Amino acid sequence: MIKRYLLAPGPTPVPPEALLAMAMPIIHHRSPDFLPVLDSAKKGLQWLCQTKNDVLIICSTGTGGMVGAVNNFFSAGDKALVINAGNFGERWTKICKAYNLSVEEMKIEWGFTVKPEDVEKALRRDPSIKGVFVQASETSTGVYHDIKALASVVKKFDNTVFVVDAISALVAHDLRMDEWGIDILIGGSQKGLMLPPGLAFVGISEKAWAFAEKSTLPKFYFNFRKERESLAKNQTNFTSPVTLIIGLNESLKILQKEGLENAFRRHERLAHATREAVKALGLEMFTRESPSNAVTAITAPAGVDGQEIYKNLRVKYGITAAGGQGQAKGKIFRIAHLGYAGTFDVITAIAGVEMVLKGMGHPVKLGTGVAVAQELLLA
Amino acid sequence: MIKRYLLAPGPTPVPPEALLAMAMPIIHHRSPDFLPVLDSAKKGLQWLCQTKNDVLIICSTGTGGMVGAVNNFFSAGDKALVINAGNFGERWTKICKAYNLSVEEMKIEWGFTVKPEDVEKALRRDPSIKGVFVQASETSTGVYHDIKALASVVKKFDNTVFVVDAISALVAHDLRMDEWGIDILIGGSQKGLMLPPGLAFVGISEKAWAFAEKSTLPKFYFNFRKERESLAKNQTNFTSPVTLIIGLNESLKILQKEGLENAFRRHERLAHATREAVKALGLEMFTRESPSNAVTAITAPAGVDGQEIYKNLRVKYGITAAGGQGQAKGKIFRIAHLGYAGTFDVITAIAGVEMVLKGMGHPVKLGTGVAVAQELLLA
Repeated sequence: MIKRYLLAPGPTPVPPEALLAMAMPIIHHRSPDFLPVLDSAKKGLQWLCQTKNDVLIICSTGTGGMVGAVNNFFSAGDKALVINAGNFGERWTKICKAYNLSVEEMKIEWGFTVKPEDVEKALRRDPSIKGVFVQASETSTGVYHDIKALASVVKKFDNTVFVVDAISALVAHDLRMDEWGIDILIGGSQKGLMLPPGLAFVGISEKAWAFAEKSTLPKFYFNFRKERESLAKNQTNFTSPVTLIIGLNESLKILQKEGLENAFRRHERLAHATREAVKALGLEMFTRESPSNAVTAITAPAGVDGQEIYKNLRVKYGITAAGGQGQAKGKIFRIAHLGYAGTFDVITAIAGVEMVLKGMGHPVKLGTGVAVAQELLLA
Repeated sequence: MIKRYLLAPGPTPVPPEALLAMAMPIIHHRSPDFLPVLDSAKKGLQWLCQTKNDVLIICSTGTGGMVGAVNNFFSAGDKALVINAGNFGERWTKICKAYNLSVEEMKIEWGFTVKPEDVEKALRRDPSIKGVFVQASETSTGVYHDIKALASVVKKFDNTVFVVDAISALVAHDLRMDEWGIDILIGGSQKGLMLPPGLAFVGISEKAWAFAEKSTLPKFYFNFRKERESLAKNQTNFTSPVTLIIGLNESLKILQKEGLENAFRRHERLAHATREAVKALGLEMFTRESPSNAVTAITAPAGVDGQEIYKNLRVKYGITAAGGQGQAKGKIFRIAHLGYAGTFDVITAIAGVEMVLKGMGHPVKLGTGVAVAQELLLA
């Protein structure tokens, strides 16, 4: 037997409260039993997204929410500005192109973040840009884009909505939808919300709803106006993913007990301790600026394959972390501290990394990183 | 406390084996842990759909599978023949229209089935028809269309694929994808497969894959060619709904132990007993021909509101059955015998209906229908 530890940036571990609640006999989504369940989830998501707007609940992975953010608010030929700073930025480009939007890509070197002033320049240069698409936390590189500053830029342009993939950032970062002016905010269940995959969440501003009136792209499954009408009646447009929404209420209950601010601070502390511990081992961060609270991306030491570190963590020590994606594959490995995560997940991760590196012949003084993490996580 | 009984045509009760398996700590969908899980689900679905073709697993409700069956194989302007015999036939029309297909609707009076010779005539009249869309079991009216005969008609036309929404029929009816020539077969998790909502299944023939090459409709989330490539590596294109797929393996294990033929026969017996019991109460079937094995649709007695029967079953006796949909609302009520269903689910349903009708002042001799069901279900 090798005991397993899940430290990947999604799916993340599901707390026992949610696992148990989801193991209860199923109820019917159109019966009155379900109305208060959906009502409570709906309100909880508004609290989490810091918004008075509707937050739709869609039965799909987070990517389904991203697709809906394109096909509900835009039309073929509409101009999109995509901030592509990694694998998921790339996904925005692919989705927009699949729906025949005209894409201007702002390519950012992996490990770096977009400069809000560059976005402002682009919008001034081309006022026909209808949407700015970005990730809050770009999981492939471990950066957090400055969503507050970006929102304040896009807000100046009446003809442009600000679309944020917050799939891995939600719960890990303070994202003030209404106060900052995020128009479309997308979340997913299997990240900070500590649930199995299968739900996408989409918060939508009034500014964005006005765009929806004009959208001519085909839509049926991801038809957000229909979902909005259903949500007003505490329903979903199609069969509700009952089980996951019951689990969602459990996760929200845990987070509400912790408090939003505390949840953000917990993620920040865990992320900070992870980074400092890794640096104490002489390793370099792949993330060059503004690191995400959700995941830490670490450059593999010279001559060491990042995928081998990931593989050894799993095979030798039962730790499922993550390797690199796209152009970073082989160069990096990643450790998540997202959702149902605490002090000893960081300790486990760092201890595991030390032991794997030593096993691979890389000079490491065991306990060096662990001690740094301990110091920073003293209660 | 009022004990609850779920007798609705989806979600259907989830067996404890699946509930328990889904309550296990989550695993990562890109780790080697998950490969055998998906491999086993994949093979089990091929067994269930009686096909050597790929059966894709999509994270969505069944409707997502229906949408994918349109946007992956057709292009705007393509001619579709939709057999609209109820609420879900209507859904085919809506989806095809949302994607700008040119729809010829064959409207069938609710409670009746399509005549295969009419489909043949329509296809001969207009050889440009690229797809024939139908439900196997039309849940809103309780009919089962003759899929075998329809398949043998469509098979004659090289330019036409046969698309079957088998969401509520799968497991309840013998559907021989390869032998009969069903080109696209769609299932959902929360019906005969006894799982929570969240998975769609789509079996696809080689004839249909050739259509996919020419399709120009926008596709990203429901991109079946990408899903096919992923499935070959025991992956899904986006984050796998890990938990539900683990549950799927448990359901498939139960069904494989029972045997396909036995599962069909069980559904047939339960459906037959339900119908005969209902008739013994002097009630009329809403379904006028070829009743489905999944759900029985019953006309409410003259002067009695079908929705009130549904409501009384739930409120007074804790039984969640179903009312009517669309034009049948108020006129009918429906009882499912689908998935994790056995003898005493039928007895419960019939006893409940008798007690509700008596309570509503309708003349009923208690036990009349129950006795008929008992007789037919003697082991």
